[in-house]
Amino acid sequence: MYRLYDFPPSGNSYKVRLLLTQLEISFEIVPVNILKKETRTKEFLAKNPNGRIPLLEIEPGQFLAESNAILFYLSQNTEYFPQDSWQQAKVMEWLFFEQFSHEPHLATSRYWITILGKAEEYQAELAKKQKLGYAALEVMEKHLSKNDFFVGNKYTIADISLFAYTHVADEGNFDLSRFPAILAWLERIKSQPKYITI
Amino acid sequence: MYRLYDFPPSGNSYKVRLLLTQLEISFEIVPVNILKKETRTKEFLAKNPNGRIPLLEIEPGQFLAESNAILFYLSQNTEYFPQDSWQQAKVMEWLFFEQFSHEPHLATSRYWITILGKAEEYQAELAKKQKLGYAALEVMEKHLSKNDFFVGNKYTIADISLFAYTHVADEGNFDLSRFPAILAWLERIKSQPKYITI
Repeated sequence: MYRLYDFPPSGNSYKVRLLLTQLEISFEIVPVNILKKETRTKEFLAKNPNGRIPLLEIEPGQFLAESNAILFYLSQNTEYFPQDSWQQAKVMEWLFFEQFSHEPHLATSRYWITILGKAEEYQAELAKKQKLGYAALEVMEKHLSKNDFFVGNKYTIADISLFAYTHVADEGNFDLSRFPAILAWLERIKSQPKYITI
Repeated sequence: MYRLYDFPPSGNSYKVRLLLTQLEISFEIVPVNILKKETRTKEFLAKNPNGRIPLLEIEPGQFLAESNAILFYLSQNTEYFPQDSWQQAKVMEWLFFEQFSHEPHLATSRYWITILGKAEEYQAELAKKQKLGYAALEVMEKHLSKNDFFVGNKYTIADISLFAYTHVADEGNFDLSRFPAILAWLERIKSQPKYITI
């Protein structure tokens, strides 16, 4: 059975839990507390030298890291990844957008404010993250004002990836009320079959 | 003919130029000067709403952004992307590692120091980038001390992606002399057929 090394509040971990559930693949969760630096132990680093969760253990000793790489792997030949090669490329474009232009700002703000509870300590960095995070949300809003989903007018791993930290953006002090297309899209995701909450 | 919107010093653009050349695909370069904010014009944002290069125009009006998504698209069904699904997943893992744990530190340091020439202004940020960049290099060194390439013992887009900013790490004040396995791998990449310099 798949084993998911998981920090429950993590949006990156949630992506994997959501897809596994929607694929009806059973899996075992191994909780790893990043606040206690449990991803930096010698034992964990032997599993993932980059010291991060989520980490999926496919077979004993066979590990895959990086949430979006895990989504890619699990979704191959399923309805959650397009068959068309151009659409596949567009899914990848949004997955890289998520990890480069979105996650570092929305997820990190949420981590500092809600998970660590240190909004004051990180005040200066949070101001920069606000600007960059809103820029990412603008890009999403523009796309979603003309499309129901990110690629091929269909729910794919691009939506799962971007949903993870967008739907809890308020926990990083991002106000989504000025993004009506994003808000409508969040509801579309929540109404997908076998949806689970973070 | 493919058209590549390109800022010549960019390592992300170089990845695409290198793969296109190795695939013997001819392409036209459209220079875009990010220092003059040419990626933030209304005209460019209509092509890529995220306002970044590289941007590949496949057919007139058909655009693909995100360097690693472009590598993915171009390498499908070529020797630069594995056929095996597990190896494909491991390529993706390294591509996301590159964009999340490597590029933001090595590329940004190089940008501030060598391209903008503002090492002093960014002194505090550079110190943080040093720590995180070296952590990424340690992960690479560990892998390359046991493997000639990143995936499947063969040159793939994972190597192209990681090579781009690693081989110019010194321009961001990273000293590679303590990473013998990385240095040997850099030479292996430079000896690939149809290799071009940045």
